[in-house]
Amino acid sequence: MTDPPTDLDSTVRKLIDGKTKPLGALGQVESVALQLARATATPAPRLESCELTIFAADHGIAAEGVSAYPQAVTRQMVLNFLHGGAAANVFAGAVGASVRVVDAGVAGDPIGHPDLLPRRISAGTRNCLIEPAMTETQRDNAIGAGRNLVEDCPADVLCFGEMGIGNTSAATLIAHKVLDLPLAGLIGRGTGLDDAGLARKSAVLKAASERTAPVLGAEAALCEYGGFEIAMMTGAMLGAARSGRPILVDGFISTSAALVAIGMEPAVERNLIFAHRSAEPGHSEILEALNARPILDLAMRLGEGTGALLAWPVVRAASAMLTDMASFESAGVSGPA
Amino acid sequence: MTDPPTDLDSTVRKLIDGKTKPLGALGQVESVALQLARATATPAPRLESCELTIFAADHGIAAEGVSAYPQAVTRQMVLNFLHGGAAANVFAGAVGASVRVVDAGVAGDPIGHPDLLPRRISAGTRNCLIEPAMTETQRDNAIGAGRNLVEDCPADVLCFGEMGIGNTSAATLIAHKVLDLPLAGLIGRGTGLDDAGLARKSAVLKAASERTAPVLGAEAALCEYGGFEIAMMTGAMLGAARSGRPILVDGFISTSAALVAIGMEPAVERNLIFAHRSAEPGHSEILEALNARPILDLAMRLGEGTGALLAWPVVRAASAMLTDMASFESAGVSGPA
Repeated sequence: MTDPPTDLDSTVRKLIDGKTKPLGALGQVESVALQLARATATPAPRLESCELTIFAADHGIAAEGVSAYPQAVTRQMVLNFLHGGAAANVFAGAVGASVRVVDAGVAGDPIGHPDLLPRRISAGTRNCLIEPAMTETQRDNAIGAGRNLVEDCPADVLCFGEMGIGNTSAATLIAHKVLDLPLAGLIGRGTGLDDAGLARKSAVLKAASERTAPVLGAEAALCEYGGFEIAMMTGAMLGAARSGRPILVDGFISTSAALVAIGMEPAVERNLIFAHRSAEPGHSEILEALNARPILDLAMRLGEGTGALLAWPVVRAASAMLTDMASFESAGVSGPA
Repeated sequence: MTDPPTDLDSTVRKLIDGKTKPLGALGQVESVALQLARATATPAPRLESCELTIFAADHGIAAEGVSAYPQAVTRQMVLNFLHGGAAANVFAGAVGASVRVVDAGVAGDPIGHPDLLPRRISAGTRNCLIEPAMTETQRDNAIGAGRNLVEDCPADVLCFGEMGIGNTSAATLIAHKVLDLPLAGLIGRGTGLDDAGLARKSAVLKAASERTAPVLGAEAALCEYGGFEIAMMTGAMLGAARSGRPILVDGFISTSAALVAIGMEPAVERNLIFAHRSAEPGHSEILEALNARPILDLAMRLGEGTGALLAWPVVRAASAMLTDMASFESAGVSGPA
């Protein structure tokens, strides 16, 4: 996450240091401001709007009993998002962000709702314990759909969330294969497995991992183990970065999509602002591998983009510091004695 | 910070556990929600507005060279607040909070500005290295003014900030005397002292501390070492708690005011939500003594209420979770398999 100093960096540093506050007194908000400048290639980007896009899809591996909740919950939660009752909805309202919901591949028949964006690749992935979760064509279609979805979005800052029973398993396997990190450290309880459930999930993921080479490229890992929501989020991140917008990366699943996006286009990393540290233990492993220091650490592990949403006001404040805060000179405030 | 379980607690816990999310998946946001319920004595308080009141005052001990900045900066920053150019102003705009500015006792002539609330006790405190910073009458007048100021404020949640060159010295001495913590661990660089400045500040505070008994009651410590902004903030906290409103406690200085308020009325603690952990090292010492886990940890050390403001969206989200989020039952979402 540390780039060599550039002209932009020194311009921004000088701008921040001239603001009416002791040097460095805004701590990580100043670091976030520098990241925003880099992401937008602008010393003082004005960032006033934020949109969350939630991608929902189902996972064939859910049939192996890797989640505490039944697969039907993916579909039920899509309806909950559309009715405004989920945590993501109420958090978005609290922080002034808008929400879109995308069917990337929910199991069962298509969900008919006027506010749902239908981009379903298939009615869920195949079971990655046995075979690749998706074909290369499905993967590329999902990535393309994600890219297109952000082109339609005028917001200054983009958050991406997800819903998909079984998707901590997908994210775990992607991170394991792409980063070559030990599998055990990446496996967690997801929505709340008990000890027996965790043991079963661990055994399933170990077997699924053994089906392919120890290390895979990002795109291959996405085919083998990914979900349509993860692939579409990857595309959305690629598109958002291409348009020079900051991306607020949510938790464990979103960070696995970010890993794939970075693997495909390393320059994407410049646009990623890591919003929070999830309580899902694998998230800290991935963040460390990316040398990322997230904004919040609230022991949340819900997904949906909830962590990204809560970091948006901090990002907005960092932007406002750059654009609207007075300098010692403009405010007539004395410097150190 | 841990009260015995009450009927309210179990009602709120049940309400939170019924929301459409895995048990405990919103982590600290759930703890904050419980605190909000306790503070308001309501299972699901609707908290939609927030106001920051900034108290400004000067400190006689500034004459001893305990700050990196000249005393004139207090007054200059008051004008900066009134013109909307300070970090507190731009952060308030970013998070949707309003701002009031109070002259609690800035050095020099009264500042004439239509938006400034004039509550000055005196043109700064006396030098607490030599004598008590304020009289008991001044202290009581300041506390009373703070209480009255919150009565005039209709906001659901209250943030208090401060400006006063030299006030980390005042806060350090208050915490040292009230909590009986070692002085050295409470002394920091404030606005940015260099090593020589820090050594000077340490020597001055040691001498100032030796002027009085090793341990003082909260009200006595406030007289001996406090500032008018700290005393007025103490009164505002007492008043806010009395009105059943949550208080977002900012950083090191604000937490010293909270210590005095708790010393005067222990029940106030129920209304205090600790917003962030300051980079001023003494803040962690006080937070630990209070067994408080703040919401944010962004290495900020500016004061003005900036940390409290950035925590407001999290508090608002916690409230919205209680009031607006669907339950498994209302949304027709399945529970664990």
